[in-house]
Amino acid sequence: MNATPRWLTSEEKAAWDSFIRMQEKLIGRLSRRLQDDSGMSASDYIVLVKLTGNEGGRMRFMDLAKVVEWEKSRMSHQIRRMAKRGLVAKEECPDDGRGAFVVATPAGHRAIEEAAPMHVEHVRRLFTDALTREDLAALARISDRVLAHMEQQPD
Amino acid sequence: MNATPRWLTSEEKAAWDSFIRMQEKLIGRLSRRLQDDSGMSASDYIVLVKLTGNEGGRMRFMDLAKVVEWEKSRMSHQIRRMAKRGLVAKEECPDDGRGAFVVATPAGHRAIEEAAPMHVEHVRRLFTDALTREDLAALARISDRVLAHMEQQPD
Repeated sequence: MNATPRWLTSEEKAAWDSFIRMQEKLIGRLSRRLQDDSGMSASDYIVLVKLTGNEGGRMRFMDLAKVVEWEKSRMSHQIRRMAKRGLVAKEECPDDGRGAFVVATPAGHRAIEEAAPMHVEHVRRLFTDALTREDLAALARISDRVLAHMEQQPD
Repeated sequence: MNATPRWLTSEEKAAWDSFIRMQEKLIGRLSRRLQDDSGMSASDYIVLVKLTGNEGGRMRFMDLAKVVEWEKSRMSHQIRRMAKRGLVAKEECPDDGRGAFVVATPAGHRAIEEAAPMHVEHVRRLFTDALTREDLAALARISDRVLAHMEQQPD
């Protein structure tokens, strides 16, 4: 880069630093609690939430990767590990050529049913309880704005 | 947990989902860019930012762990890997019994000087540019509120 960098203003930097610190601390604490309470990683949790929220607890592998916005290789690795632990299974469907399904096993359903109430309680305790309805509405609007903006940007 | 879980209201859930999606996508993209542009992980970057922002490019190991809020074991592992790559060095100080210093090497200084302008450009391009001054002020306030609230909560 040869151009003079557009350094952040002190206000931008303060907002960025606070946001980064908050999200890192919050996600770190929630992940540790999830692991301690339920023996699941945040990745295990989100995969099971997505699968069990779907008809029959199953999704096409590629649709699952898309909905959580992971690369295919990361999702393959994750599903392999979860299958080993009996939380999900792969179902080949040779008929239609649209690829395998991933399905939550009965153990996977049980795991998410047990973990979800505790996880939501920690989200509430550490995050939602700190904020007013107006704060939450502002945060949703700001987050959606950043997401929409990122869609328009090259990687 | 035997009590009925306090599930999130639809507004709380919408805010939480947007926030989680935004931070995951944003941090993921920034981390990949940092890796591609500079060969550094987000952890390498933050350690070098903290060290080089300090007098003489050095900090006590424990102070460094504290300022980035990592556990000692994570920091040990990180410093060992960065030392292998020549970005930092450990300086023992047997005199005062207050533990070793970590110091950014000349290569570490060069690495952060090269990486920082590109990283800031991506922060601006993907995040700051999407938001008004009012948005940034609101986000800083909300983040600080969550941080202060988390301080009061058990882990």
